[in-house]
Amino acid sequence: MQLQSTEAIQPRSSEAPNNWFDYPVRAQPHHTDYAGIVWHGTYIAWLEEARVECLRSLGIEFSDLVAIGCDLPVVDLSIRYHRSIKLGTEAIVRARMSAMEGVRLNWEYQIQSLDRQETYVTAQVSLVAVDREKGKIMRQLPPTMQDALKRLSGQFEG
Amino acid sequence: MQLQSTEAIQPRSSEAPNNWFDYPVRAQPHHTDYAGIVWHGTYIAWLEEARVECLRSLGIEFSDLVAIGCDLPVVDLSIRYHRSIKLGTEAIVRARMSAMEGVRLNWEYQIQSLDRQETYVTAQVSLVAVDREKGKIMRQLPPTMQDALKRLSGQFEG
Amino acid sequence: MQLQSTEAIQPRSSEAPNNWFDYPVRAQPHHTDYAGIVWHGTYIAWLEEARVECLRSLGIEFSDLVAIGCDLPVVDLSIRYHRSIKLGTEAIVRARMSAMEGVRLNWEYQIQSLDRQETYVTAQVSLVAVDREKGKIMRQLPPTMQDALKRLSGQFEG
Amino acid sequence: MQLQSTEAIQPRSSEAPNNWFDYPVRAQPHHTDYAGIVWHGTYIAWLEEARVECLRSLGIEFSDLVAIGCDLPVVDLSIRYHRSIKLGTEAIVRARMSAMEGVRLNWEYQIQSLDRQETYVTAQVSLVAVDREKGKIMRQLPPTMQDALKRLSGQFEG
Repeated sequence: MQLQSTEAIQPRSSEAPNNWFDYPVRAQPHHTDYAGIVWHGTYIAWLEEARVECLRSLGIEFSDLVAIGCDLPVVDLSIRYHRSIKLGTEAIVRARMSAMEGVRLNWEYQIQSLDRQETYVTAQVSLVAVDREKGKIMRQLPPTMQDALKRLSGQFEG
Repeated sequence: MQLQSTEAIQPRSSEAPNNWFDYPVRAQPHHTDYAGIVWHGTYIAWLEEARVECLRSLGIEFSDLVAIGCDLPVVDLSIRYHRSIKLGTEAIVRARMSAMEGVRLNWEYQIQSLDRQETYVTAQVSLVAVDREKGKIMRQLPPTMQDALKRLSGQFEG
Repeated sequence: MQLQSTEAIQPRSSEAPNNWFDYPVRAQPHHTDYAGIVWHGTYIAWLEEARVECLRSLGIEFSDLVAIGCDLPVVDLSIRYHRSIKLGTEAIVRARMSAMEGVRLNWEYQIQSLDRQETYVTAQVSLVAVDREKGKIMRQLPPTMQDALKRLSGQFEG
Repeated sequence: MQLQSTEAIQPRSSEAPNNWFDYPVRAQPHHTDYAGIVWHGTYIAWLEEARVECLRSLGIEFSDLVAIGCDLPVVDLSIRYHRSIKLGTEAIVRARMSAMEGVRLNWEYQIQSLDRQETYVTAQVSLVAVDREKGKIMRQLPPTMQDALKRLSGQFEG
């Protein structure tokens, strides 16, 4: 599901490999509101699904993280709605981790039409690793996670 | 907020006091779907909210139950949609515990217009008390809960 | 995505073809509640998604139906929760139209583990075709829909 | 429901009247996720509810706006999560329109504990008035809305 980025939104460096993760969604009736378009809060769920599936593609099972006592709550989220998505439309949620600052992970997103000609939504989400038992921010990420994410971040730090 | 029950679903005994709990709701944009009416799954959240608030009115805090290791998962739910509710409409969710069979609690619901002239939805929900740690059905309800519910069920077992 | 039914839940007639439609889902964080399992209302969205995708597999685009003025509201829904689904678990929503009585469509569902050894949820949902403009039940289904569904229902009426 | 602002977040001008609208919420089971706290997307629904109810308090029925062909989609949203809200906790969503730039309405929010000692969430949301039929941004707000909002904005432009 890692597709080539071929349009306007170029990687920041021409050297940088293409590290977007693509997650397909479709606007089902329960995603819509009275206006016949996707309700603006629905996108938050899609961003989360894309993030979880991207981590899974790196070998990080979110439920395993939770099981070992590490949670990754969202601490900051901003989202811009460029165009609405109608009932029945299929779209691609493109996600990538844009920065890793200690235990803070920054993600960015673009939700686009299948042909990449339309951008519906752009978003940024920041997460912080928290020790569930202590209820405190962790000093460092769990080792397995750190390794997997370093491989990922190596892609854009190169 | 305890009003007279005047329709089909009569109290089981004419002696029984009126034990419906009324919980007001309003159809907000996020509750609706493309058809401009409340999405059919939204009602499940409203039934839950009415149940939790009814228990609270009896002195049972749901979060306290969870904290002492007792969960009350829904095991059975049926719902009939008589009329749709439009964006902006206010309605009353009427809830009552209709039976208590050991650790199984049966609830019934009517969602009505404010003037009680329209019934939008009728529903039945069954819950079972579960020991969260063991993941097993409890042999009996926690004592504080049992006492509070007996007072409630006394109303209809009269 | 039409898989063979190999276990306990047999087609009603040994002559009947296998007409279950399989729709995969995964329990994402936003599907769960405080208990770490899928919230009981989440399943309503999954049933809807499976139904819409089953219709699509027959050539019926739900958004096209809506566009020609036909809506398919749920009029009756019952659901039994056999086992909970934990965060991160993948499951299969199996859906099929079990009866077509005029403009009323009855569906049945089983939500199962990937290996079919566990049944998490069983459900029945009834829909009725409604003329959106008039707000009334239609006398008959739109022709294209009728044809597609007859092919489907031929499978179990055979 | 208009309470005094007594803490850190002061009105911008000491002359400015207190124009926060307070909307109470409670963390119900369906609002929570596996971590036992309110799922981060739930807040989007609460922000919307508070906004709709604030408009209602000014005499603007959101469903009336929609009926006359004016929609108010969210075009920009940012939200910061300071502290989590646990199952069963009651909180106050404080909302106010902070600016009106033509047909663009900017809102700001604080979600606080009942005693105002804790701030759980801060957020900004921008809406734009859209002609539903044309699918285009309106040149100006519907007159009744403009009047009501001017009274409101007079409060902070004073």
